[in-house]
Amino acid sequence: MKKSFGPKTLIFPTPVWCVGSYDAKGRPNIMTIAWGGICCSKPPCVTISLRKATYTYGNIMDRGAYTLSVPSEKFVQAADYFGMVSGRSVNKFEKTGLTPERSELVDAPYVAEFPMVLECKLIHHHEIGLHTHFVGEILDVKIDANVLNDDRLPDMEKILPLVYSPEIQRYYGIGEFVGKAFDVGKKL
Amino acid sequence: MKKSFGPKTLIFPTPVWCVGSYDAKGRPNIMTIAWGGICCSKPPCVTISLRKATYTYGNIMDRGAYTLSVPSEKFVQAADYFGMVSGRSVNKFEKTGLTPERSELVDAPYVAEFPMVLECKLIHHHEIGLHTHFVGEILDVKIDANVLNDDRLPDMEKILPLVYSPEIQRYYGIGEFVGKAFDVGKKL
Repeated sequence: MKKSFGPKTLIFPTPVWCVGSYDAKGRPNIMTIAWGGICCSKPPCVTISLRKATYTYGNIMDRGAYTLSVPSEKFVQAADYFGMVSGRSVNKFEKTGLTPERSELVDAPYVAEFPMVLECKLIHHHEIGLHTHFVGEILDVKIDANVLNDDRLPDMEKILPLVYSPEIQRYYGIGEFVGKAFDVGKKL
Repeated sequence: MKKSFGPKTLIFPTPVWCVGSYDAKGRPNIMTIAWGGICCSKPPCVTISLRKATYTYGNIMDRGAYTLSVPSEKFVQAADYFGMVSGRSVNKFEKTGLTPERSELVDAPYVAEFPMVLECKLIHHHEIGLHTHFVGEILDVKIDANVLNDDRLPDMEKILPLVYSPEIQRYYGIGEFVGKAFDVGKKL
């Protein structure tokens, strides 16, 4: 028996990604989001959705670029903080002691200490309602060498990204390996 | 030191959601995706991205609706299978023995046995490149009563959704509780 929760933004899992941008004065800003996802393979694109009221919204519209820095579990405190205060009133990099690294590919900074970064060029934006939907073409994905697996491939078990649980508002880690994709279903 | 992986659809975490639709003859179809995410709070919306070549693409364009069924870990085999074969050639519900439940709100079926379901009305679609980007308004979220927590709220630790790791193509479970959102960052 299913219980109805009505129309709401409730689904699992959702990501925890930190959006990097520069403001009009060239100051770096960073903001945590859970509303986003990959949206195209060719060209490789990732979407994020922001309210117009956010400082990051104007930055991205002006600069046509953003980065996504993926925090690992140990950065949960900073990631949460990045989603709680506005870059209008505080330099969140200075406050957390984290480093705004300037992307060489797009006009935006990323968090140097976080293990994984995507550098994105804005190619579309769509108005949906409260949120504007940004589509960014992924120009590069950079990952710390020390969180790659033995084959030098990206390993979620080493990167340890956060998973966000909407509604009850909690962060979780990544769990056990469950199965190989395009493989475990072959038995059927 | 970060290693560059180039422009690709590589980020963590990504979801494992099964898209339900009806074809022109009213036959239920189901397809697993990892390219999607919440994209607006008001109205509550979720996006999915599909190639035009998929059977589901035409179904959604014709019916203007889709559902997202969230598989729990124990359904990993079916979820993987739903992403491997086309509904053009096989009835994936029959093959897996799972039940296509007709939504009372939108013109699409969902997987009755999966613990969580979103019923979505198509409100936009955008061409990006290889993928078309569908924006669906969430009309209801339904969750099995036996996977709610003691406060009758949705609990990711009980629903046990899958997390997909692109590139190395693996499914993972949800891990440990790491922190309370809008709370753990207050110390900064």
